[in-house]
Amino acid sequence: MNHSQPPMMTLFRLAVFGSVACFAVCFCSISNAADPLPSWNDGPAKKAILEFVAAVTDENGKDYVKPAERIATFDNDGTLWVEQPIYTQITFIFDRVKELAPQHPEWKTTQPFKALLEGDMKTVAASGEKGILQMAMATHAGMTADEFTAIASNWIKTAKHPRFKRLYTECVYQPQLELMSYLRASGFQVFIVSGGGIEFMRPWTAEVYGIPPAQVVGSSIVTEFQIKDGKPVLVRQPKINFVDDKAGKPVGIYQHIGQRPLLAFGNSDSDMQMIQYTKAGDGLRLGLFVHHSDAEREYAYDRKSHVGTLDKVLDMAADNDWIIVDMKRDWTAVFPEK
Amino acid sequence: MNHSQPPMMTLFRLAVFGSVACFAVCFCSISNAADPLPSWNDGPAKKAILEFVAAVTDENGKDYVKPAERIATFDNDGTLWVEQPIYTQITFIFDRVKELAPQHPEWKTTQPFKALLEGDMKTVAASGEKGILQMAMATHAGMTADEFTAIASNWIKTAKHPRFKRLYTECVYQPQLELMSYLRASGFQVFIVSGGGIEFMRPWTAEVYGIPPAQVVGSSIVTEFQIKDGKPVLVRQPKINFVDDKAGKPVGIYQHIGQRPLLAFGNSDSDMQMIQYTKAGDGLRLGLFVHHSDAEREYAYDRKSHVGTLDKVLDMAADNDWIIVDMKRDWTAVFPEK
Repeated sequence: MNHSQPPMMTLFRLAVFGSVACFAVCFCSISNAADPLPSWNDGPAKKAILEFVAAVTDENGKDYVKPAERIATFDNDGTLWVEQPIYTQITFIFDRVKELAPQHPEWKTTQPFKALLEGDMKTVAASGEKGILQMAMATHAGMTADEFTAIASNWIKTAKHPRFKRLYTECVYQPQLELMSYLRASGFQVFIVSGGGIEFMRPWTAEVYGIPPAQVVGSSIVTEFQIKDGKPVLVRQPKINFVDDKAGKPVGIYQHIGQRPLLAFGNSDSDMQMIQYTKAGDGLRLGLFVHHSDAEREYAYDRKSHVGTLDKVLDMAADNDWIIVDMKRDWTAVFPEK
Repeated sequence: MNHSQPPMMTLFRLAVFGSVACFAVCFCSISNAADPLPSWNDGPAKKAILEFVAAVTDENGKDYVKPAERIATFDNDGTLWVEQPIYTQITFIFDRVKELAPQHPEWKTTQPFKALLEGDMKTVAASGEKGILQMAMATHAGMTADEFTAIASNWIKTAKHPRFKRLYTECVYQPQLELMSYLRASGFQVFIVSGGGIEFMRPWTAEVYGIPPAQVVGSSIVTEFQIKDGKPVLVRQPKINFVDDKAGKPVGIYQHIGQRPLLAFGNSDSDMQMIQYTKAGDGLRLGLFVHHSDAEREYAYDRKSHVGTLDKVLDMAADNDWIIVDMKRDWTAVFPEK
């Protein structure tokens, strides 16, 4: 019977189990405190990030960089959130065309609108960049800046990814959310530098990524200031203003941020120039690419993909000291828990 | 004789003077703590600013605005620093032309370079905007981004204002330095929105105004990313990219900041659209203009001035609830003490 055990034994058990429990609790909390990137597996990518941040924030080290110069830039599509099977903004364009169709009877006989409205996606795809641009202008221009913000905000609140059945804003990468928080906690200013539309992103990046509108760099259309019915408004025009992609990315960074990044993160050949520009700066710099290698949890694509082509970068990475982050190997989780 | 005075009298004197001294010290420090704008005279402008900031930062008030939405924009020339007798950047252009002349023998026979090199300022002035633009392109383009930053940085370190014999960066307005500090302390993000060249300002705004490069919006020329001798560089092209003036200012704000300002401060008709856009937002907004009314301490100019014309604004201010800050009346000091 229990109560017949010598009191000393009971005390001993209590002591042992108590210690173990305490040790476990302490170990966990120490481990959490010590690891700012819990969704990153130990490996060369995580090691490179941790060592880089430690070096540039060590006031007594030779690689120290003042907080004012700690700029980090992230591509968005495929780097911070899912870009397959098609860019989210393309889905937005398609949804908007369908919603606006009743006000545009001419679309029933005009390509590529006709094909889209009839669900003929082959013809839509065949219309290529020109077709997409036509639909982009029809859905992104002609309204005021405030009206477009409301349209984009409302769409993103309910639109879901076709495969993951989650809001697009929940198809963001958990390891990257951790990395951006870690960088901010280490005195970095984090910017998005995306080929996507700047005004499509700004309504939600603060809430989803912690990145305020002024820290979003992207492609844009021309906007005009007008006094309309006595009220000053900005009216969006159907004309490209700036394409923040490929060689446009370092230019966008120069125009918008005015400082060379210390760290830049992309996922495709379109991000190569941003990483080249970043790495060409003085002192320690870090350039990284997500390699989508995980068909099970997300997607597997690289050299031959039309969306997010990663080809030249894979050939050039080793010689240029670019870090390839392998999604399957390096990330313990892909999306945030719901 | 002194030492024959009764000790009581000495004690009394000590007590009285001691108290006065203490009172003076205490009063000063209380007064400083209570007044975030010591170089602003009490009056309608200062009152409007203090009441506005109190209202938008009062969490229990009906006009409360979250810190993330507290955006303030300031014009630069004539609003934050002296713009007379000519814009500082024009002086920079002239100095650069003179310095580069030995490498450009063709300038000896090409206007307006010839006139400038001969000191014939009438002919230079007669060349108008076109002539200035020609000289701007000759001095602002053709080099890398980093090279231009170094050129602008070096110039601003030694260039002095012809009348005040101070560095241009010391010809900034003390009351505005106080206002920007006060706004930042009240949770605002402060941006420059200037018609001047963005890359001419960025090298020194952090040190002089506390405004980092990414918070400077301005006019720009086209820049191209190139790989030159194996090195990635940004090369400045002799072609206008964006004119951040008049109706361009709200557009620049939209493109660059992505949020409508809560407070905007200018000094000329060129700032009118920025203020109109600001005031057209929901809730409480503040729009202000410096009126240069102080020929003695700075300059007096408005409707007829070629630099910083303030004409329409003066007619429209009352109806539109724009605050006119009268330099002579509203500012106790103009420049910082050296």
